[in-house]
Amino acid sequence: MSSLPVPREPLRVYLARHWLQAPADFSTVPVLANPAATAACRRYVDHDLNRTFTSSFLNSRPTPDDPYEVTRARELKQLLGPKASGQAFDSVLGLHNTTADMGTGLIAKSSHEVFAMHLCHHLQLQYPELSCQVFLYQQSGEESYNLDSVAKNGLALELGPQPQGVLRADIFSRMRTLVATVLDFIELFNQGTAFPAFEMEAYRPVGVVDFPRTDAGNLAGTVHPQLQDRDFQPLQPGAPIFQMFSGEDLLYEGESTVHPVFINEAAYYEKGIAFVQTEKFTFTVPAMAVLNPAPSPAS
Amino acid sequence: MSSLPVPREPLRVYLARHWLQAPADFSTVPVLANPAATAACRRYVDHDLNRTFTSSFLNSRPTPDDPYEVTRARELKQLLGPKASGQAFDSVLGLHNTTADMGTGLIAKSSHEVFAMHLCHHLQLQYPELSCQVFLYQQSGEESYNLDSVAKNGLALELGPQPQGVLRADIFSRMRTLVATVLDFIELFNQGTAFPAFEMEAYRPVGVVDFPRTDAGNLAGTVHPQLQDRDFQPLQPGAPIFQMFSGEDLLYEGESTVHPVFINEAAYYEKGIAFVQTEKFTFTVPAMAVLNPAPSPAS
Repeated sequence: MSSLPVPREPLRVYLARHWLQAPADFSTVPVLANPAATAACRRYVDHDLNRTFTSSFLNSRPTPDDPYEVTRARELKQLLGPKASGQAFDSVLGLHNTTADMGTGLIAKSSHEVFAMHLCHHLQLQYPELSCQVFLYQQSGEESYNLDSVAKNGLALELGPQPQGVLRADIFSRMRTLVATVLDFIELFNQGTAFPAFEMEAYRPVGVVDFPRTDAGNLAGTVHPQLQDRDFQPLQPGAPIFQMFSGEDLLYEGESTVHPVFINEAAYYEKGIAFVQTEKFTFTVPAMAVLNPAPSPAS
Repeated sequence: MSSLPVPREPLRVYLARHWLQAPADFSTVPVLANPAATAACRRYVDHDLNRTFTSSFLNSRPTPDDPYEVTRARELKQLLGPKASGQAFDSVLGLHNTTADMGTGLIAKSSHEVFAMHLCHHLQLQYPELSCQVFLYQQSGEESYNLDSVAKNGLALELGPQPQGVLRADIFSRMRTLVATVLDFIELFNQGTAFPAFEMEAYRPVGVVDFPRTDAGNLAGTVHPQLQDRDFQPLQPGAPIFQMFSGEDLLYEGESTVHPVFINEAAYYEKGIAFVQTEKFTFTVPAMAVLNPAPSPAS
């Protein structure tokens, strides 16, 4: 009987293994970002890797006492970056899953990421039944910290709900289909396809809300059934957000409608996040210029 | 911002904390079975506690090198047992949750547990909408190994699906309601209520099925979408059970219909269990004798 450890986010692990064994003719490199955490069946060993790609971690002098993920982030910077440099990879696609009911979440840095926005739009058009939602995580003045921020263009696929330590075939198949379509899109781009301007609807963070807690820091309640599994849906002022163990409801006391995401994500309890508040906004994405036009036979 | 660890099965942890703070007038003792694992956000530290209540672990000579859970099992035996002795607790109720879609599972040792069978029947009658299913785990000739086997009567509530590390309000409320009803039933029994005989339908294990694996022991596929989330439902010979990463389906090649349970349970990957095969059977539960009849005014 085999009994190998199963990682907390096994989906990307098995996809990476699959592609390593059967590489496409497209130039891609599957990377298992955090092999030590994978072996230990944890999100991370010392420090959340996907919060480690900032200049203070990447550019500090290495020491033997560095947390594992800081050392690993520098390795990945060498492989995929350096961040914001000409040698960096053109694109990094992060594969994630969440216990929240995020459906097919597409996570990019900001609305200024024109390539990523066209890629999101392409996925939305290809798979209308998936209702792909776009979450733009970077807050004003904040440095990007994600793995995919190391490349010139980054996007993360955030599929859910899937428990940690479980590999669901439906989520796995969806991820595989989306990744194939991302590679197709890059191929279209490389072939000189023109991508016209369009209007994009997306969500950006405006704050986080922690669970209600006792004075000792223990949970005093949990996400209300009327909020659970309603990621990206509008939350109106006065609606219940937590059900206390004492039986009472806690209501949302904000002044305007927000759209919660990462509702009851297992990995965020320790971060003090029951859900992330976002606001919906729309913006125009400009046409994407053809970088390498095919040579004209007439010229 | 608080950032206390969240245990892998937080539901029972928070229920235990709740009852410790607000004890009922019924004589109950909430026990957090594995506090070290709770603190470490894991199912166990050294050895699966809920497989440790066997005579070889409980009765061996303690040594300083004993796994944490072996020492803890002996402590719990002192508190709740000794197992199969007159001093043991009358009843232990285990509170569990699973990533499998088990709904409201009631897990007892065998059909011979008359008190537990009447208790299960009572829960089924009280909550027909929950479709409580009864799983009798003990296989012929096998010693019981669960925490609740230490008491004279044991039952475990197995609610799902709930991801590890997440506390869902709907599951929490259901568990709280069920526990209150179990206490009510014990009170009815203590008051001398007569419980007539009835026919019971239940499931018993006939085998386990591991995930398909590569020669190196890695997963080669996962639970098929047509089997996922179908706990307790009939699986016919020839139906798909696994979807391989290569794309093909693996079919169930047994000769008779089985009823899988614990389908894609996160904690069982390491045990080499993708699901447990059970067979459905029916049996008669005899009337439960009144142990402490109220004194008759006429006698």
